[in-house]
Amino acid sequence: MSRRSDRVDDLVAQALGGEATTSHRAVARLISLVEDESPVLREVMAALAPHTGHAHVVGITGAPGVGKSTSTNAIVAALRATGRTVGVLAVDPSSPFSGGALLGDRVRMGDHAGDDGVYIRSMAARGHLGGLSWSTPQAMRVLDAVGYDVVLVETVGVGQSEVEVAGLADTTVVMLAPGMGDGIQAAKAGILEVGDLYVVNKADRDGARRVASDLRAMLALADRRGDAWSPPVLQTTAQTGDGVAEVVAALDEHRAWSRESGELQRRRERRARAEIEAIAVAALRARWSGVGDHAQLGSLAAAVAAGESDPYTAADALLT
Amino acid sequence: MSRRSDRVDDLVAQALGGEATTSHRAVARLISLVEDESPVLREVMAALAPHTGHAHVVGITGAPGVGKSTSTNAIVAALRATGRTVGVLAVDPSSPFSGGALLGDRVRMGDHAGDDGVYIRSMAARGHLGGLSWSTPQAMRVLDAVGYDVVLVETVGVGQSEVEVAGLADTTVVMLAPGMGDGIQAAKAGILEVGDLYVVNKADRDGARRVASDLRAMLALADRRGDAWSPPVLQTTAQTGDGVAEVVAALDEHRAWSRESGELQRRRERRARAEIEAIAVAALRARWSGVGDHAQLGSLAAAVAAGESDPYTAADALLT
Repeated sequence: MSRRSDRVDDLVAQALGGEATTSHRAVARLISLVEDESPVLREVMAALAPHTGHAHVVGITGAPGVGKSTSTNAIVAALRATGRTVGVLAVDPSSPFSGGALLGDRVRMGDHAGDDGVYIRSMAARGHLGGLSWSTPQAMRVLDAVGYDVVLVETVGVGQSEVEVAGLADTTVVMLAPGMGDGIQAAKAGILEVGDLYVVNKADRDGARRVASDLRAMLALADRRGDAWSPPVLQTTAQTGDGVAEVVAALDEHRAWSRESGELQRRRERRARAEIEAIAVAALRARWSGVGDHAQLGSLAAAVAAGESDPYTAADALLT
Repeated sequence: MSRRSDRVDDLVAQALGGEATTSHRAVARLISLVEDESPVLREVMAALAPHTGHAHVVGITGAPGVGKSTSTNAIVAALRATGRTVGVLAVDPSSPFSGGALLGDRVRMGDHAGDDGVYIRSMAARGHLGGLSWSTPQAMRVLDAVGYDVVLVETVGVGQSEVEVAGLADTTVVMLAPGMGDGIQAAKAGILEVGDLYVVNKADRDGARRVASDLRAMLALADRRGDAWSPPVLQTTAQTGDGVAEVVAALDEHRAWSRESGELQRRRERRARAEIEAIAVAALRARWSGVGDHAQLGSLAAAVAAGESDPYTAADALLT
């Protein structure tokens, strides 16, 4: 066995068992391997695979400003109160400029700093292999395998990311807040199909009830998947914790329903499918751009740019 | 020659030449083929390839509410005043619910309805092959080939789409407006590297100058590509047309610079590369999900979901 494998075995053993501090440190290192797109990941994932499938994976999404971080924080506290351990992935679209997190309020999560039953990690889409679509499921897989009862994935819900997180989570929470203006209006149309649970945060503000009732009306009109689950619309004030216990109860209810109905299994297979595809595509991209037979992508692109070939003919050449 | 090829030949001939009304109709049908992910696209693109490479491809991006559609409209008018023909692609992130456009102000583009030198098309990311990343460059290719002097691609600048449009266009215009609050603040970090030209719209409103000067300061701090192009920050009031002629002048200036510096060629090759990759990946995805040897993706995903395999091992199986 190579030294590399020994190192991976040690790291995986530390992450899976052992004392909390050691385990946290090992988990942190495993997720860094994911972020760095380390070549040892395949060994890590092979070692972790038999331990996966137990966590309740919850996606929390919503436009900037709805209070996602505060809510995540409150949900973590409520879950801890029921004795469950929680791993949190806070996913920020990376700035191509700074490569860093965009949201300053990430620090609030420090509330749980002394709690061994909570692990929090901020992730940025720095990588080249397909960004968040590639690294987020791998990091979720790590947190699932090492035994967190709940894995919360918080994403900035802009553009298509609601849809992405919905594809990844067992249960998707869509957050809204009153007074968000145009953005919410635009967002609404995109969120009606993805939420298993809707939370109108800042319920103490003017217009919160209206947002909730509008949303209920829109959900009633939206002919959803035709399944038996009717997504509840809850109201919270995350800063005081009002309504958060009800959110946790609804999460549990959805979990029970999705397990019984077979939806959980379907989503997990869909998630695995997306993971496999992302890894396969990344491997091919690396091959196409690298040395050897397939480094032809550069010259194919030049031919297409010059009008001497078309992208379909070039793609055929790449695939043969 | 098959009937299908005859049909494609006719359509391409009509789009490339002939009388304006016939040509517009043929272009519309070609872009519908793109949206429908038609299997005849490979023939269409092969026929169009020798005609591509002449248009100035301009991306216009910015958060909802900055006035992108009004500005696009005004830029089209200013370009028409210089005698150039313009093709516009208005790209909306598709709602998974409605499948339709989100923005009501699309209708304003009707200003150019009677003008044969303008073609406007709204595109939604309905498809399965990779959505906008797949269909937008194909539609741009159609408009380029049929001879529009300028192809404007307007995208809703949320999440990663600024970066995407920047990868596709010869020249990228990033739009901002005063009074946009949090969203702009968050967006700013992501836009500093992608703009070739910044436009602060609604210049008649309070705070526009401040947005422009803040942006100039941030751009000065951001150590950009180290190239010779310093992106100008312009101010417009799109509704009155104030400042729009200067935008067109700056577009022309960037075009001249990028041609001379070799940047235009680099971007076009990058665009072609992205197109080829997207088509190759879509072909593989179809193969993996389809019948035959590679339909194994479903069973591989089930094994991974069950913890019996890991996504890397499964991806290897898919690729061999």
